[in-house]
Amino acid sequence: MKPIKVGLLGLGTVGTGVVRIVEGHQEDLQRQTGAAIEIAKILVQDKSKARSIAVDPDKLTENPWDIVGDPDIDVIVEVMGGVSVAKDHILTALAGGKHIVTANKDLMALHGAEILAKAAEKSCDVLYEASVAGGIPIIRTLVEGFSSDRITKIMGIVNGTTNYILSKMSQEGAAYADVLKEAQQLGYAEADPTSDVEGLDAARKMTILATLGFHAPVALGDVGAKGISQISKEDIQYGKQLGYTVKLLGIAENNDGHISVSVQPTLVKNSHPLASVNGVFNAVYVYGEAVGETMFYGPGAGELPTATSVVADLVAVVRNLKLGINGRRVLAPYKEKKLKTDEQIAYKNFILLQVEDKAGVLAQITQIFARHEVSLESVVQHPDAGKPQAEIIIITHDANQASMKKVLDEFGTMDVIHAIKSVYRVEG
Amino acid sequence: MKPIKVGLLGLGTVGTGVVRIVEGHQEDLQRQTGAAIEIAKILVQDKSKARSIAVDPDKLTENPWDIVGDPDIDVIVEVMGGVSVAKDHILTALAGGKHIVTANKDLMALHGAEILAKAAEKSCDVLYEASVAGGIPIIRTLVEGFSSDRITKIMGIVNGTTNYILSKMSQEGAAYADVLKEAQQLGYAEADPTSDVEGLDAARKMTILATLGFHAPVALGDVGAKGISQISKEDIQYGKQLGYTVKLLGIAENNDGHISVSVQPTLVKNSHPLASVNGVFNAVYVYGEAVGETMFYGPGAGELPTATSVVADLVAVVRNLKLGINGRRVLAPYKEKKLKTDEQIAYKNFILLQVEDKAGVLAQITQIFARHEVSLESVVQHPDAGKPQAEIIIITHDANQASMKKVLDEFGTMDVIHAIKSVYRVEG
Repeated sequence: MKPIKVGLLGLGTVGTGVVRIVEGHQEDLQRQTGAAIEIAKILVQDKSKARSIAVDPDKLTENPWDIVGDPDIDVIVEVMGGVSVAKDHILTALAGGKHIVTANKDLMALHGAEILAKAAEKSCDVLYEASVAGGIPIIRTLVEGFSSDRITKIMGIVNGTTNYILSKMSQEGAAYADVLKEAQQLGYAEADPTSDVEGLDAARKMTILATLGFHAPVALGDVGAKGISQISKEDIQYGKQLGYTVKLLGIAENNDGHISVSVQPTLVKNSHPLASVNGVFNAVYVYGEAVGETMFYGPGAGELPTATSVVADLVAVVRNLKLGINGRRVLAPYKEKKLKTDEQIAYKNFILLQVEDKAGVLAQITQIFARHEVSLESVVQHPDAGKPQAEIIIITHDANQASMKKVLDEFGTMDVIHAIKSVYRVEG
Repeated sequence: MKPIKVGLLGLGTVGTGVVRIVEGHQEDLQRQTGAAIEIAKILVQDKSKARSIAVDPDKLTENPWDIVGDPDIDVIVEVMGGVSVAKDHILTALAGGKHIVTANKDLMALHGAEILAKAAEKSCDVLYEASVAGGIPIIRTLVEGFSSDRITKIMGIVNGTTNYILSKMSQEGAAYADVLKEAQQLGYAEADPTSDVEGLDAARKMTILATLGFHAPVALGDVGAKGISQISKEDIQYGKQLGYTVKLLGIAENNDGHISVSVQPTLVKNSHPLASVNGVFNAVYVYGEAVGETMFYGPGAGELPTATSVVADLVAVVRNLKLGINGRRVLAPYKEKKLKTDEQIAYKNFILLQVEDKAGVLAQITQIFARHEVSLESVVQHPDAGKPQAEIIIITHDANQASMKKVLDEFGTMDVIHAIKSVYRVEG
C-alpha cells in the first residue's frame, strides 16, 4: 500500500504531539495499518517561528489551500482549533474526498451534524476521539463497546482545569480566586478562563457524548451550564463533613427517551468512583441498563495524551482505507430528541441557608419543602457562634426541579432566611 | 439485509443474558447494524431443564452438530465454557465459514493463536471482548483506542471473586477462610475456588491482555501466578497502617521489548486509582508511553454485563458482514516474545519478618540488603508485647528479583529470623 499522506492543520501543543507520535512510532504504525504514514504538509500561522521539534521547513505552509486543495493529501488532521475557519477547511477537504481527524470539540459540538452529513455524502471518515477527554477512548467505548446496551446516564469530569482547581481547593482549603491564579501561572488555566470555569467547555463535550450515547441529536443549546466560580471554601468544607466531594460534572440522562444534559457543580459521594478523580485527570462514568456501572479514567488534555487519540483515529482511517470502507461506519443519530421538562428532571439537592437563629424557623422551612412535596434526607443546623443567625444544611431526596424552584422562590420571600448561600446537585 | 442467524452454544448465566439483550434490544440492534439478529438455535445439555427465560423449545438442541453444521447459521456465540469441547465446536464452525463470538478466557488463553490463525485462513471474525473483565470493553481499548501508543504496563484487577474477598477482609478485618465461605454462600465463589483464589483465572486473562497490548505471543505458561489464600489479616492491617490496600493484581510489563507477566497479591498505594476498586468490580490500569495513566472500571462478571460485551461483539460481526470485511481486522502478534530474566524484573517489596528482639538484629538484616544492593524505603519494628520477639516491616525501593531471592535465601538461614511471614510486591 502506498504511503498515506497527511495534511496537518495546526502545529501547537497537540499538533506537535501528533508529529512526535507519527514519527516516533512509525514502525509500529506501519505494522498496525499496513501502510507508511507521512505528515506531508503542515499549516502554521508563522513559518519562521521557533519550535520545540525539528520539522522540515519545506513541509510548512501558511496557505491552507496548499493542504486542503492538494489532491495528493489523503487525510486532514485538524488541530488548529476555533470554529468557522476550521469548519471551512474541513468542508473544503471533504468536498475533495479527504478524510478528517479532528480534536475540535467546539466545532463538533456546534456543527458535527453538518460535517458528518457531508462526510457520509462523500464516503469520507470524520473521526474525533480527541475532542472529548483527551487520551481516554470514550467515543469508541460508547459507539463500539456499548453498541449492544441502552445507556441511561453519562457523568463526566471532562474539564481538567476546573478539576485541578476544585481538587486544590479541597485538599488545601484554598479559595477559588487564589487557586485560579496559581493554575494560570502553571499553564493549567488560560488568561481568560471563562470557557473552562463557567462550564462552557464541558458543555460542548457533553453535547458530543450525549449525542453518541443516546443516538439523539443533542445540541449545545440543550445543555444548561453552571460553572465553579461561585463555589466557596465553606461549600467544600460542609460537603466534606457530610462525606461528599465537590466536582464539576457534566450529567446526561436518558429515561425512556427523555433526555436532560447539564453541567454543574455537584456534591459527589466519596464512595462514588468519580469522587477520587483528582487534579487535571478526566473521567467519564457511564451507566448502561445491561452493563451497569462503568468508568473510564485518564489524562484529559496535554500534548501526547491528546495526540494519542488523534493518531489512533488516523490509524482507523488508514485501516479503513486499506479495506475500502471509509465513511461506511458513521451511525447518524436515529432517535428523536425529547428533552425533559423541569418536572421530569429529579435529583438530590444540597442547600445551604443562612437563617435567623430563633425558635420555629426550622419548622417554617421544612413546611415549605413538605408543601411542594420535596422530602428531606438530612437537615443539619449550625449556630453561628455569638451571632443571632445560624446556617442550615439540607440534603433532599430526589426532587423535581419545578418543585425545587418553587421552594427556593418561597425562601427568597422569607424574612427569617437571610441568604440562600448555595444550591448544588448531589450524586452517588 | 437478511436476518443474521446466530447459534448459541450454552444457555447458562451468560447465554441467558445474551438471549435477553438480543430480544430486548432488537430494535436498537437493527438500527445499529442494519440487520435483524435472530438467535436461531441454542445448544443445551438438557432440553427439559426449567429456565429463567422463555425460549421456544424448537430452538433448543442437545446435538452441537445441529448448530455448528447448519449452513444457515452465520455466527456462533460460544458461552458454554470449558476448553477441548468448545475448541472443537469453534474449529468446526470456522471450517464451515461461520464467525465466532466467545466469552471463553480459558480457550483464548490456551488456544487463541491457533483459533485466530484458522479464522484468518477462513476470513472469519473471532471476537472475545467478554473473555476479560466482563462488561469493560478493554480489548477494544487496547486494540483500537491505543493503537497509536506503546503500552508499557497493564495492571488489572481481573478477578471479581478475589477482589470481593480482599475488600471484605480489608473493610471488616475478617479472616480469609471466613470471607471465602461467605462468598461461596452468596454465589461469588465456586465450591472449588482454586481457579479464582490461586490466581489461575487472572493469569488466563492477563495472557490475553499482554498478547494484545504488547503485540507479542504471550503464553499462559509465561505467567507466574500466586493467589490470595495465604494472605493474613495481619498483612492487610500492616498494609493499611502504611497507606496501602492489598489487591490481587495481574501485572504485565514491557520495557524495550522485554516482557514480564505475573499475578500476585500486591500492596497498592491508596492514592493509586486501583486501590479504591472494591467488591466484585474489575478494573484495568493501562500505562502508555504517550497517553500516560489510564484506567477502565466496571463489572467483571454477571449475566447482563458479560452479555453486553458478547452482544457488542455480535454487533461488530454483523457490521463487518454488511461491509464484507470479516476476518480482515485481526492483527496477529508481530513482535518477538522476549521474557525478562529475574535480573530484569524490578519492583518494590513489602517484607514482614518475625525476629528475635535483641540488639543488633536490625543491623544484621539491613547489612544483607546492602550486600545484595537492595536499598530500603522504610523499616518499621514492632515489639511483640511481652514476648522476646519483634516484627519488622520493610519496604524496599525497586529491587530486582534475583537480588531479592538472594536476600530471602540468606534470611532463611539466620537463627535470629524466626519467620519470613510475608513478601509482597508494592505498586503506586
